[in-house]
Amino acid sequence: MEIELINTGTELLLGRVLNTHQQWLGQRFADGGYTISRQVTVPDTGPAIRDAVKAALGRAGLVITTGGLGPTSDDITRELIADLLAKPLRRDDTIADHIERFFARRNRPMPRTVLVQAHVPEGAVVFPNENGTAPGLAIELSSNPFRESGGPAWLLMLPGPPRELRPMVDDQVLPFIKKSLPLEQEFHCRTLRSLGVGESMVEDMLLDQLKPLMDLGLDLGFCARTGQVDIRLCGYGTEMPQLIADAEAIIRVAIDKQIYGIDDQSIAEVVVERLITAGETLAVAESCTGGFLGHHITNVPGASAIFAGGVLTYSNAMKQKLLGVSESTLAEHGAVSKSVAIEMVEGTLKVSGADHALSVTGIAGPGGGTPDKPVGTVWLGVASRGGRPLAIRKFHPYDRETFKHATVHQALELLRRRLQKIG
Amino acid sequence: MEIELINTGTELLLGRVLNTHQQWLGQRFADGGYTISRQVTVPDTGPAIRDAVKAALGRAGLVITTGGLGPTSDDITRELIADLLAKPLRRDDTIADHIERFFARRNRPMPRTVLVQAHVPEGAVVFPNENGTAPGLAIELSSNPFRESGGPAWLLMLPGPPRELRPMVDDQVLPFIKKSLPLEQEFHCRTLRSLGVGESMVEDMLLDQLKPLMDLGLDLGFCARTGQVDIRLCGYGTEMPQLIADAEAIIRVAIDKQIYGIDDQSIAEVVVERLITAGETLAVAESCTGGFLGHHITNVPGASAIFAGGVLTYSNAMKQKLLGVSESTLAEHGAVSKSVAIEMVEGTLKVSGADHALSVTGIAGPGGGTPDKPVGTVWLGVASRGGRPLAIRKFHPYDRETFKHATVHQALELLRRRLQKIG
Repeated sequence: MEIELINTGTELLLGRVLNTHQQWLGQRFADGGYTISRQVTVPDTGPAIRDAVKAALGRAGLVITTGGLGPTSDDITRELIADLLAKPLRRDDTIADHIERFFARRNRPMPRTVLVQAHVPEGAVVFPNENGTAPGLAIELSSNPFRESGGPAWLLMLPGPPRELRPMVDDQVLPFIKKSLPLEQEFHCRTLRSLGVGESMVEDMLLDQLKPLMDLGLDLGFCARTGQVDIRLCGYGTEMPQLIADAEAIIRVAIDKQIYGIDDQSIAEVVVERLITAGETLAVAESCTGGFLGHHITNVPGASAIFAGGVLTYSNAMKQKLLGVSESTLAEHGAVSKSVAIEMVEGTLKVSGADHALSVTGIAGPGGGTPDKPVGTVWLGVASRGGRPLAIRKFHPYDRETFKHATVHQALELLRRRLQKIG
Repeated sequence: MEIELINTGTELLLGRVLNTHQQWLGQRFADGGYTISRQVTVPDTGPAIRDAVKAALGRAGLVITTGGLGPTSDDITRELIADLLAKPLRRDDTIADHIERFFARRNRPMPRTVLVQAHVPEGAVVFPNENGTAPGLAIELSSNPFRESGGPAWLLMLPGPPRELRPMVDDQVLPFIKKSLPLEQEFHCRTLRSLGVGESMVEDMLLDQLKPLMDLGLDLGFCARTGQVDIRLCGYGTEMPQLIADAEAIIRVAIDKQIYGIDDQSIAEVVVERLITAGETLAVAESCTGGFLGHHITNVPGASAIFAGGVLTYSNAMKQKLLGVSESTLAEHGAVSKSVAIEMVEGTLKVSGADHALSVTGIAGPGGGTPDKPVGTVWLGVASRGGRPLAIRKFHPYDRETFKHATVHQALELLRRRLQKIG
């Protein structure tokens, strides 16, 4: 079955807002065995939305729209689609009640206009919105008027704000789709996430060995981002769990050390979970990453149980004052050096009382590089109570944000390997 | 003129990669007066790309593709489009030289396959790739075979990696488009960026007053994101600078205090620039934001001149040890309180020697809330050398990342108002 996604919103085309729906929905649906085959963004105008919906229904058995369900004048998706599919809109009192209670709970006056969101195309399935006012809606077309082959189709309308759309999709929409549009064969998927090995190297090492499994129907995909490679193993049918397990075994022989997690796990989640299990704590000292390492750690719910905190020693004075890095080390080796990374991580362990510490010192650029230490040079330190500190040098000659991203991931990977006692 | 964007890449539809091209290109083009009217993502398969290009050329005078120009087997855009437009591919020696030098400079062996990127459709304009190997390509169709009205059209192929695409667009592609497809009337645009005033409130206050200017051709747009509202004033013609200036004057009478910047300026850039101009420094103390505030500040190139650093006092012990927050204050008021925010910011000023300091202490959730201090509660502190510290309470009952985002922006806004002596 073909699935198409239509994102409505002039602000998306003007670039005022980043379209995160495509990635989020794409991944959620693909993980369930439903691949989105096409995505389009159109402005908030009647003809553009109408043409996009008609064209998508001309190809697909499931069409999903996002946005345009709110109460303002440019929210026209609900009415347009009801009109296009000749389904009259009727007021749904349960939704109207929900909207009134939503405003009452927040002690906010309710503009009358918001009640337009309680209007539902005849026969539509309603997905209540736990985090907003506009419900999601699903309309079944027993015969699709826009497709030559006719056949049934579903049209799904979802609210635009990610805070409203995401829980609705996880809790209501995906279970509904699995029931209403069941897959012909069961679907299985597993993603192995690796750090520290290049995409072409992974491909070279693995393609030949995995070829026989791919001939049996295993779908193999690689996805690379600055130092990370995700290896996606998927397929349909009852044989697939065994094929995926065989493929994973082959991959782990080749790059087991580099695989840090499975499916959606981030490297920060893996490290935080491992520390929680061990009942140990972590502190960080960041120079060039300026807080981005702490940000990743504290994005994991429950991180407060293991994160003691850290210091952002952007200046040499702060490195000396907060971490006890010695003036002579700074003078002799410079701030971006193995010795300073080591003194930073030792100082962090001491000042925080944590069980483990990470340090980062480098040159994010665009200024500050020298022939000896060009922009992109970074030293990462790791230390654990009662163990010897270690520092490694890396080089990421990219823009400032890519540099920070690659550096933070490597720092977390350095700690993961230490925690898992991987050499 | 209609402009359509086609992003190619199966990994985009599977959600393995976030599509940032849509936003970035959308904004860059819109700022130049060229509005992208439609965006589509298709998988890396021949029929999907071919159908998308044909359909887009059927509507638009400028069609832009991204991705699929590399050397691997799923990079098929160049060949497909050359075939579709009946333009034979010819080897371009200048590009081949560039690719060979690209590998030589990095001391990496060059796979023979990469030279496929030196093949250029006959008559195409070449945009050299300063940050990679595949050049951008532009093909002019003096008569468009896919459109009923015929007429000329341009087809532009850009490389997929943002690090390659972005400088190519800024330095080469946009100047080329302005020359080859000049606007009929000059275009002017100005975005006022505000914090701390709701979208509906902005609309209510301004719409009536701006109506006469809109009747004269001014295009007014609002874009809201958790506490921020961008107000975009644009239009075509020689009268537009005056209309935009008039509109800005009206808006500033209503919400001048809330406007922190213009066009692309982020609140962090505004604060960093102001501190650089004043020759003053800043330090931060973060609890619940865990480094996200420091990350925003250090994303601004040149921040090292003004950012002394900071502390991530996630635990009470760190608040006491690094910042001298008193045990009795913590016991009496709790970590998320006005008194602790004040002691944190005073301690930060002291330990860092900086001229200004910011502190953040709150409950990001999902755990840790109480009836008194529910999840989303946060105190922000600001202090300056020789001045009285100040703390304000905010409430962001959202998911963890939205909470951090809103909190960091408000902390920076608190400092901006202090620096600009806005009450």
